[in-house]
Amino acid sequence: MNTVDLNADLGEGYGSWAMGDDNALLDVVTSANVACGFHAGDPSIMRAVCRRAADRDVAIGAHVGYADKPGFGRRFIDIEPAALRDEVLYQIAALDAFARVAGSEVSYVKPHGALYNTIGHHEEQAAAVVAAVADYDRALPVLGLPGAVWLKLAEEAGLTVVHEAFADRAYTPEGTLVSRRLPGAVLHDGREIAKRCVAMATGAPIKDVEGGELKLQPGSICVHGDTPGAVQIAQRVRKSLTDAGVELTPFAA
Amino acid sequence: MNTVDLNADLGEGYGSWAMGDDNALLDVVTSANVACGFHAGDPSIMRAVCRRAADRDVAIGAHVGYADKPGFGRRFIDIEPAALRDEVLYQIAALDAFARVAGSEVSYVKPHGALYNTIGHHEEQAAAVVAAVADYDRALPVLGLPGAVWLKLAEEAGLTVVHEAFADRAYTPEGTLVSRRLPGAVLHDGREIAKRCVAMATGAPIKDVEGGELKLQPGSICVHGDTPGAVQIAQRVRKSLTDAGVELTPFAA
Amino acid sequence: MNTVDLNADLGEGYGSWAMGDDNALLDVVTSANVACGFHAGDPSIMRAVCRRAADRDVAIGAHVGYADKPGFGRRFIDIEPAALRDEVLYQIAALDAFARVAGSEVSYVKPHGALYNTIGHHEEQAAAVVAAVADYDRALPVLGLPGAVWLKLAEEAGLTVVHEAFADRAYTPEGTLVSRRLPGAVLHDGREIAKRCVAMATGAPIKDVEGGELKLQPGSICVHGDTPGAVQIAQRVRKSLTDAGVELTPFAA
Amino acid sequence: MNTVDLNADLGEGYGSWAMGDDNALLDVVTSANVACGFHAGDPSIMRAVCRRAADRDVAIGAHVGYADKPGFGRRFIDIEPAALRDEVLYQIAALDAFARVAGSEVSYVKPHGALYNTIGHHEEQAAAVVAAVADYDRALPVLGLPGAVWLKLAEEAGLTVVHEAFADRAYTPEGTLVSRRLPGAVLHDGREIAKRCVAMATGAPIKDVEGGELKLQPGSICVHGDTPGAVQIAQRVRKSLTDAGVELTPFAA
Repeated sequence: MNTVDLNADLGEGYGSWAMGDDNALLDVVTSANVACGFHAGDPSIMRAVCRRAADRDVAIGAHVGYADKPGFGRRFIDIEPAALRDEVLYQIAALDAFARVAGSEVSYVKPHGALYNTIGHHEEQAAAVVAAVADYDRALPVLGLPGAVWLKLAEEAGLTVVHEAFADRAYTPEGTLVSRRLPGAVLHDGREIAKRCVAMATGAPIKDVEGGELKLQPGSICVHGDTPGAVQIAQRVRKSLTDAGVELTPFAA
Repeated sequence: MNTVDLNADLGEGYGSWAMGDDNALLDVVTSANVACGFHAGDPSIMRAVCRRAADRDVAIGAHVGYADKPGFGRRFIDIEPAALRDEVLYQIAALDAFARVAGSEVSYVKPHGALYNTIGHHEEQAAAVVAAVADYDRALPVLGLPGAVWLKLAEEAGLTVVHEAFADRAYTPEGTLVSRRLPGAVLHDGREIAKRCVAMATGAPIKDVEGGELKLQPGSICVHGDTPGAVQIAQRVRKSLTDAGVELTPFAA
Repeated sequence: MNTVDLNADLGEGYGSWAMGDDNALLDVVTSANVACGFHAGDPSIMRAVCRRAADRDVAIGAHVGYADKPGFGRRFIDIEPAALRDEVLYQIAALDAFARVAGSEVSYVKPHGALYNTIGHHEEQAAAVVAAVADYDRALPVLGLPGAVWLKLAEEAGLTVVHEAFADRAYTPEGTLVSRRLPGAVLHDGREIAKRCVAMATGAPIKDVEGGELKLQPGSICVHGDTPGAVQIAQRVRKSLTDAGVELTPFAA
Repeated sequence: MNTVDLNADLGEGYGSWAMGDDNALLDVVTSANVACGFHAGDPSIMRAVCRRAADRDVAIGAHVGYADKPGFGRRFIDIEPAALRDEVLYQIAALDAFARVAGSEVSYVKPHGALYNTIGHHEEQAAAVVAAVADYDRALPVLGLPGAVWLKLAEEAGLTVVHEAFADRAYTPEGTLVSRRLPGAVLHDGREIAKRCVAMATGAPIKDVEGGELKLQPGSICVHGDTPGAVQIAQRVRKSLTDAGVELTPFAA
């Protein structure tokens, strides 16, 4: 039987400010990337999201980011690697406390936004993130994009590496993401997105941006929750997977 | 043989800003109250202080405070108890990660500044701090002033309560601190301060502010490090205790 | 001809986080209390709101607050008065720059949330806010609740004091607000709220909480924008006032 | 008669944290680059430094920086240009309020740290800083390094551009700074530094890093205050200039 994990970013509010529909998404995904209070989230949001995730058997991942609430973690910061390592360790540990209070635990680490993009190629920051995970718990899997520098370093460090695919992004024939600056980089049609996710989960090829066949076999599929219609698309993805007989289950149990 | 613990606040710098002489104090105390990044401290300072504390077998305590760097945690904030509970849990967990990387662990919790003072009498905030400690680890002792409301609640919650005395503060005949607003509230003479510490550690009485005898038998004595001459006084306290045959050892091993 | 000013809080988003419907409210009110980046708002939001306010001839007020984004400025902070004075001056000046870029200027000051409530009775913080306004520009009116300590101090300091009434709050026979802890303190019926506003604006009495008649003649009426249905109620208030022949015009031109 | 301006960074403490010896430096310099609360400083420090600067007829410059207290403004942040423009405008305006309360005003703008370096070459961020200055007051001079991109844009925008030299930095034959990564980039000998400053101020050449003669005729010379011995060196520079008959006077009166 085919299985797949769906992950999404959650807990991205801050104080009185809301972001996305955490409750609706928690009924869709099997893994929740929970913000840790640096780019978004705060201690009380972290507690609430961890509680609800644990109640639904949704795995909790540390969605670590740059310390940048004004920029929502979407701006590269040229932080010293040692400082970044310490900030990432701080975030994982803090989230884990709330996960444990809820009877769960942090099951994986997935960096957020500009940090996620930066450590795809920036060796020093990549090594810093890997060092933080290893500092906290070498058994903790890391989730990212195939080919990313930080995942290579994670593998070398003996960490478990899991690859994700994006439900709504176009792919090149080489299996990399089409740049957001190019037309067609982001898919908006829920039916097509759901169909691609079923293909990915069942070992079938998807169409790449040039019309060829591309086989992605991700350990997790990332769905979005913070754009208009995103929750509806995510719900459709889940239904299509279930209808196709794919079992939804966290990659990190 | 008599034993005593000396505690002091450490790791109170922030980024490029320094505060106090952490290294000198770590050679004096047996317990370090380490700031957790909310009122002072940051992840890299936390790592460095935990490392040096562990190297010297100095116990690491979570010096949790209000989220208030501009006010250094010295201003009462009328925060909702549930939010305070979550902020305290967040801080303990974050510090524990750095303590563990250094081969140690958080061994106790002592609130800082305005939070320390507030939960001496503010029932809701007191309960919030106790709940956070219990959430993290019911085996974690809490360190505070005899008579404080939060310590009563901690006892009721089954936590281990340890009382501290202040090396440089005058006491009333009832054993409470003389208000800082009154003259003579703070002692400045190193010889006298050291003598009082030896008395406390050996079960002898000290003079209260009215000249009577007062027996304090604290589980820990708090020395300060952030005032002029403070490190020299702390060093003198340690030497006097050692000369008097008192063994310095962490209360929380 | 009767005239009245309607004021509301605006610009309360932060970075990627939105709050309320600024554009809709700017079509309703004649005075915008614009957050200054301490409890909410940020420089780019301040610029955008000032621009849109100026385009609509909506007066711009400095909605100064405690430096407390996590608590949205709704928590009392026991800040030293001199520090508060300086924080308030900082906020007024920063906002004024964006108002001036938009061809307008800060026309009044109205404190926000816990600061607004605190300086109703807290002498030292009240004096601090008044000193900040006087520091910036003694010609700047202040807007607040009749009877508030800070308004008395503002009058003594020679500032122009303007009183506001709340469109959706119940009043005691003495003309003070019914505590939010009591039932009926907040009105939710748009028709009733609009009717009361017309009464206030035309010199007619409203019903107090005990059924008696109460004449309020506010220089401005505060409508809310951040609760469900609030914008619709505000729009209804405006329409009712216009239908009743009341001219809507800023109190501070 | 020869005249010269000496500038230094001031007001770089934060809350309870101190940085440098503001009072000593204010007796040396004629222009104070005052931090505006984003990378360092806070409203009360800004007030105090502006007061002391005004009392000594020291010109007040807005030392604007990235919003980055943890990194002291020394880390490049890939902030959107429009957001940077608004942050810079916010800072200039806030500082100006404190300068005016002290009977002075902001007389120039000099960016800090990573922002200063970045806008030497980063077109978009450079344009953003120039736009902020122009937004606030087109009569406000900007102070920076010859050849910097932002100064070219400032000139094109009609702003007054003033060039500074660094008292303690080695220069290439082309008149650019020797990279800090190279040996000899920073001078430490107070006598030599003072001699170079006298040369700069009197139109005489200094020795470049290769031993040739280089004529710098800066509108201002930057001295440092935050390194060990820096205040003593700055005092020596001032004395040597005075002894050589050079009048010290702000470039922006």
